[in-house]
Amino acid sequence: DLVPQENYFSRETLDRLSARRTDTEWMEARQRDEDSVYLLFSSLSPMVSCPEDQGSEGKMKLCRFRYEAVRDLLQEPATVLVFLGVERRKKPPSSSQTQEAGQEPPAWFAVGSDEDAAELLKRCREKSCLFPRSPNRDLLQLSEDEAGVVAQARSVLAWHSRYAFCATCGSSTRPEEAGHKRSCLDSNCRSRRGVHNTCYPRVDPVVIMLVIHPDGNQCLLGRKKIFPAGMFSCLAGFIEPGETMEEAVRRETEEESGVKVGHVQYVSSQPWPMPSSLMLGCLAVATTTDIKVDENEIEEARWFPRQQVIDSLFRGEAPAFVFPPRQTIAHQLIRHWVGINSNL
Amino acid sequence: DLVPQENYFSRETLDRLSARRTDTEWMEARQRDEDSVYLLFSSLSPMVSCPEDQGSEGKMKLCRFRYEAVRDLLQEPATVLVFLGVERRKKPPSSSQTQEAGQEPPAWFAVGSDEDAAELLKRCREKSCLFPRSPNRDLLQLSEDEAGVVAQARSVLAWHSRYAFCATCGSSTRPEEAGHKRSCLDSNCRSRRGVHNTCYPRVDPVVIMLVIHPDGNQCLLGRKKIFPAGMFSCLAGFIEPGETMEEAVRRETEEESGVKVGHVQYVSSQPWPMPSSLMLGCLAVATTTDIKVDENEIEEARWFPRQQVIDSLFRGEAPAFVFPPRQTIAHQLIRHWVGINSNL
Ligand SMILES: Nc1ncnc2c1ncn2[C@@H]1O[C@H](COP(=O)(O)O)[C@@H](O)[C@H]1O
Ligand SMILES: Nc1ncnc2c1ncn2[C@@H]1O[C@H](COP(=O)(O)O)[C@@H](O)[C@H]1O
Ligand SMILES: [Mg+2]
Ligand SMILES: [Mg+2]
Ligand SMILES: [Mg+2]
Ligand SMILES: [Mg+2]
Ligand SMILES: [Mg+2]
Ligand SMILES: [Mg+2]
Ligand SMILES: [Zn+2]
Ligand SMILES: [Zn+2]
Repeated sequence: DLVPQENYFSRETLDRLSARRTDTEWMEARQRDEDSVYLLFSSLSPMVSCPEDQGSEGKMKLCRFRYEAVRDLLQEPATVLVFLGVERRKKPPSSSQTQEAGQEPPAWFAVGSDEDAAELLKRCREKSCLFPRSPNRDLLQLSEDEAGVVAQARSVLAWHSRYAFCATCGSSTRPEEAGHKRSCLDSNCRSRRGVHNTCYPRVDPVVIMLVIHPDGNQCLLGRKKIFPAGMFSCLAGFIEPGETMEEAVRRETEEESGVKVGHVQYVSSQPWPMPSSLMLGCLAVATTTDIKVDENEIEEARWFPRQQVIDSLFRGEAPAFVFPPRQTIAHQLIRHWVGINSNL
Repeated sequence: DLVPQENYFSRETLDRLSARRTDTEWMEARQRDEDSVYLLFSSLSPMVSCPEDQGSEGKMKLCRFRYEAVRDLLQEPATVLVFLGVERRKKPPSSSQTQEAGQEPPAWFAVGSDEDAAELLKRCREKSCLFPRSPNRDLLQLSEDEAGVVAQARSVLAWHSRYAFCATCGSSTRPEEAGHKRSCLDSNCRSRRGVHNTCYPRVDPVVIMLVIHPDGNQCLLGRKKIFPAGMFSCLAGFIEPGETMEEAVRRETEEESGVKVGHVQYVSSQPWPMPSSLMLGCLAVATTTDIKVDENEIEEARWFPRQQVIDSLFRGEAPAFVFPPRQTIAHQLIRHWVGINSNL
């Protein structure tokens, strides 16, 4: 049966406390608190420390800073500060209702800076620090806990870097609500009357689907030209305005492969902070089998028999083809399918 | 068991043919085709004809125009034109592969105009025409077929009206790809290098959840101050960057009601073109029962016994409380829950 799975980038180690974003007094106290944790970003990459054996999973660690170490950066006009939340208490606090400031769990902040990366790196005591330059690959080397924090931080910082101007009138905007809103500086702007999505971070819903052959024993995988040699993955595409998730699965599958889909079953979701997608992972049952790829997007698409998929997933050595790494929801959908009964 | 349901605004009567959006020659031919259908929008409302018995469902009809009737409007610089798709053929075309232009199914376009609404209405032969002024309520009176078309058209037009400027640099933008993209007019803008979401319509994913009491026989409903007297509905909220659908259900439920949620089960989705949300409908199982509402957003939240919900849904006359209309996914989630076994 369909059991909930935990995808990479999905773990919420922080409580976002969104109601506190407008509580300036509280926020300023947390900023200055010596237990608060600051993450430093340059060009949307977090500063990480990397041991000798690079590439081994979970081995990249976020560099954590205290208020005193970033205080000067926070004064810079180009710096963007985002409140990420407070650490979740493992146990509920003791019965006492009194809120003692010293007992509050540490708050986390992301700092986006445009200072020179080499200068920023000097702030860290550790030697092996760097800002990874291929987020799609490098950010998959974090622990599950840290990946969840980076998912939020990178998406919100990417939005600040791409949405500094008001889309409604073209004026400049400024961050508000602890980095979770931007407001137009022109007080006559339409975006200032009522609530409008122009002021809030964007999340782009994407469907990603493992399409199952009508015989239940093959799945449809495709490859883009930019994929490494031999790699195949699930089809995927942006949900368009006015579309359900299920209809987007049908449209994108048909556009990219020519295959028609009937029943669609949601499996799990994954935030993908490149820059701010929400991947909605589905199994989909094909009602036709002829393949005709959209050559603009897909180089090749094929039906893969279940046994061949299992061999590639579990045999190692020199498989005929490879899948994306386990941190991707595509990989998890494929694994999920080989683990369940073929009758949906 | 969970059967797929069709929600209002969800029916896709048109094939979007997204690959044709960049085919200017084809698009211009379809625009001038005398079979093509044009819908006229003023302030994001479609022109509709309304028979005497207003208010009865499915009785509001979209006014359909031919090319000749809107030709002059299309020349106006402030007019926005969006290609919506072509009618889906009921049967596949005959075995002949030859594409005869006359045989292509009619193409549909949405036209957003800033001309005076009264002037626009004069273009219609029918007398009972109008631009409804309360989209949240009035747009629920269309047929299922037309509601699906309006879902796409209104979302995309709303995006044009709110995103006329480049969020990355503040310059003006212009529509491209048959109304499905906007590009910055400054050729040096960062948004012109690579693919960026600033150029594409926005879709805001929202979770909407019916939270079930741990005893399986009560559900949690809330009311906002702006609701009509006696109305209760599902809790809902925007998915934030870096969050899964399931985690957003947990966070929003706890923020709005104080109730903690464990298992989350996706049921169905609904596009909600006010202006461009994607509602992701879920059942969620509470693990705590004490209610503490967020008074900024919610006026009251309560546990409702299943029998009381059934009475309100089916008894009519003067129920103790009412639900949103059947066209909302909130209504459908509530109906779905009373129809299934209480053990998720
Ligand atoms: N929000 C978005 N962000 C990036 N590209 C988008 C977006 N919406 C539509 N697109 C277009 O969709 C293409 C990728 O196709 P797909 O992911 O299959 O929908 C991109 O190359 C863009 O042309
Ligand atoms: N994309 C968005 N569009 C509109 N409001 C948003 C958006 N994202 C966050 N918000 C905020 O969320 C509030 C509604 O709360 P909720 O729907 O419960 O998340 C609004 O009043 C806004 O302050
Ligand atoms: Mg794709
Ligand atoms: Mg697409
Ligand atoms: Mg595609
Ligand atoms: Mg809400
Ligand atoms: Mg919210
Ligand atoms: Mg809320
Ligand atoms: Zn503005
Ligand atoms: Zn620009």
